[in-house]
Amino acid sequence: MRTTHEILIETRSALPALTASRERKNQALLAIADRLISEQEAILEANRADLDAARSRYGEVMLDRLKLTPERIAGMAQGVREVAALPDPEGRVLRRVTRPNGMVIEKTSVPLGVIAIIYESRPNVTSDAAVLALKSGNAVVLRGGREAFRSNYAIVQAIRKGLEDAGLPAALVGFVEDTSHESADELMRAVGYIDLLIPRGGAGLIRRCTENAKVPCIQTGTGICHIFVDETADQDMALNIIENAKASRPSVCNAEEVLLVHKNIAADFLPRLQKRLTSEREARGLVPVELRLDPAAAAIIPGTAAGEKDFDTEYLDYILAVAVVDDVDAAIAHIARHSTGHSEAILTRSDENAAKFTALVDASSVYVNVSTRFTDGGEFGLGCEMGISTQKLHARGPMGLEELNSYKYIIRGNGQIR
Amino acid sequence: MRTTHEILIETRSALPALTASRERKNQALLAIADRLISEQEAILEANRADLDAARSRYGEVMLDRLKLTPERIAGMAQGVREVAALPDPEGRVLRRVTRPNGMVIEKTSVPLGVIAIIYESRPNVTSDAAVLALKSGNAVVLRGGREAFRSNYAIVQAIRKGLEDAGLPAALVGFVEDTSHESADELMRAVGYIDLLIPRGGAGLIRRCTENAKVPCIQTGTGICHIFVDETADQDMALNIIENAKASRPSVCNAEEVLLVHKNIAADFLPRLQKRLTSEREARGLVPVELRLDPAAAAIIPGTAAGEKDFDTEYLDYILAVAVVDDVDAAIAHIARHSTGHSEAILTRSDENAAKFTALVDASSVYVNVSTRFTDGGEFGLGCEMGISTQKLHARGPMGLEELNSYKYIIRGNGQIR
Repeated sequence: MRTTHEILIETRSALPALTASRERKNQALLAIADRLISEQEAILEANRADLDAARSRYGEVMLDRLKLTPERIAGMAQGVREVAALPDPEGRVLRRVTRPNGMVIEKTSVPLGVIAIIYESRPNVTSDAAVLALKSGNAVVLRGGREAFRSNYAIVQAIRKGLEDAGLPAALVGFVEDTSHESADELMRAVGYIDLLIPRGGAGLIRRCTENAKVPCIQTGTGICHIFVDETADQDMALNIIENAKASRPSVCNAEEVLLVHKNIAADFLPRLQKRLTSEREARGLVPVELRLDPAAAAIIPGTAAGEKDFDTEYLDYILAVAVVDDVDAAIAHIARHSTGHSEAILTRSDENAAKFTALVDASSVYVNVSTRFTDGGEFGLGCEMGISTQKLHARGPMGLEELNSYKYIIRGNGQIR
Repeated sequence: MRTTHEILIETRSALPALTASRERKNQALLAIADRLISEQEAILEANRADLDAARSRYGEVMLDRLKLTPERIAGMAQGVREVAALPDPEGRVLRRVTRPNGMVIEKTSVPLGVIAIIYESRPNVTSDAAVLALKSGNAVVLRGGREAFRSNYAIVQAIRKGLEDAGLPAALVGFVEDTSHESADELMRAVGYIDLLIPRGGAGLIRRCTENAKVPCIQTGTGICHIFVDETADQDMALNIIENAKASRPSVCNAEEVLLVHKNIAADFLPRLQKRLTSEREARGLVPVELRLDPAAAAIIPGTAAGEKDFDTEYLDYILAVAVVDDVDAAIAHIARHSTGHSEAILTRSDENAAKFTALVDASSVYVNVSTRFTDGGEFGLGCEMGISTQKLHARGPMGLEELNSYKYIIRGNGQIR
């Protein structure tokens, strides 16, 4: 097994070849897409070995996330081609100014350098992350989960062949062979080798990064998303949005976890909500949503009494915490105490309350009369996404290609001194 | 003495009042400028006490940095008024898109929240940093150096009176009363209280932040700046630029520390350089520059032999390390090994070499035929500056008001679900 340190050195050393050959990036991406198809037998075989090993330890959902098929590989290749077709984020002149002394300053977007990604489960993240990094001019170090090791390794081999087909060094995509906690910790400390570390995984991984990382790091994904139903809300719209935000795909980070209802409509709205999310869903053959209720809500509808942690839990499940609040100010205050800064929504007909909510709620994405489920690079029109940042520095919300760039100032003159 | 934790809580709690009263920001800044003038007796008295205490321990340069006069306070107040006159960085719509489903997404600039600044020596940083933070919509926690404690405290009192004059909470500007290392370490660990920590000080402070900070942090200031004189350079221009970059103000981070000279012109150029920086400066009554020479340069001109560390030292003094390199590629490779990512320059008549240098050198500011001394918020036309970032995440180079903002997505619709 090659050491993580060796891989870091190799990837870093390959970076200048990419910087010097920007024009070959798209050619390389298309070659990678071709290689994913032409190498698919090797990838599927590796994936079968991962699935065999995983069968005794994981449930159906997890096995399905791990599983590759010819169709899924074709989807990965198609995704690579779509990224190739996106505009190049590098070299954009973000601002250009001629100073009184005649020098011309261009603030110009440039790649970050080497991006490392720690991720779990789904093998398609391997090609997604690699091609987003390459398209934005960065080298990448991938560190996937143990359960998908063979699949990831085979995908990386195909990617590296694609790079070589285009005359670029295979080492631009580094692959960490050690899947222990130690290798993740080593990436967190790799100052001078890694310009940005993106942890994509559970809350435990994110916390370990926040606490231990010495390299720049972007927190992603934890989403305790709130929806506040104001007293003037269109209640039919509210029921549609809440059901969509909670139950269309409960396992994702932009799903709703907490509902706040204005006290003046609670007696009217909550019974309708309870029916919509429980008996009506059952009648439609859908999984009903368990409601965890604060005392005021529990006085109106049946449900589980909310415990101390229910308003600070990312369920990722068919569970919704419900509280009654006095007004928009109380809703904003509740969100300030419990939000993870991901996605928050107000449903209202009041322009004043909408303006207050969007101004005062501190989150990556703040919605008015729209489901929180739209926080996603594709839905925002970015064409792709490397993850959803819940921090405020550098990138916030869905990170597309532009967010994988930094900038530098290029100053041209004819002898200016100060 | 109030604890740092108490101050953090107080400042954080004051933030919503600022968010809700954007329109009062400029009024507050103008009131602060007035208070700096009206409270100047108290500030000068506190400063005299600092100076008395410092006299036995510090040299003239340091005492001068510490010293306030009515003129300097007037300069501080004028600086505050100039910041008030700058455009408001908050609330800019950075991108607006209407999606096919009709929802409208606005990527909108917003303040970071609470910015903490650890700084040393000059008391004017107290008002500069506070007003830049306030103008950009942020609360601020200031932690200055021990030697300027009384001066900083008095300035903060004036600032807080100005805030109250404008009906804003004084606690928006927090002042850490503990000047020990412990309080700096506490700020580095204040997750949930601080959204951005900016260390402004020596390399030791920056390193402590990189190694220990749990809160988002921006590295500033360390500048080992290189100038490469290509074989086609205009040599008269080169002499002017080098003398300016090295000797106009050697104590600042954008001063040149290392000179690289193309081997084909070394025999001609180095003797002219040596005369310009030593005997000619002496003849003009100026401090001569000590040259630390690599073996190839030492074979051509007299000077000190460069030791192992001379190409990795930020001298901040009348000292210049000089090396002869084979060509632009060798210069770029030398800079990649030794640069701190601050400011680097090429002096050349070759468009091709200029393009290669600006593309491949990885620094905040890359110059063609211009002195490195221009890396500065004012000189770049930003109107002001909170420090110079040498990292690539979030902000790079001079940080003006825009760099003290993050953004959020505001999405408005009429019931969109996914």
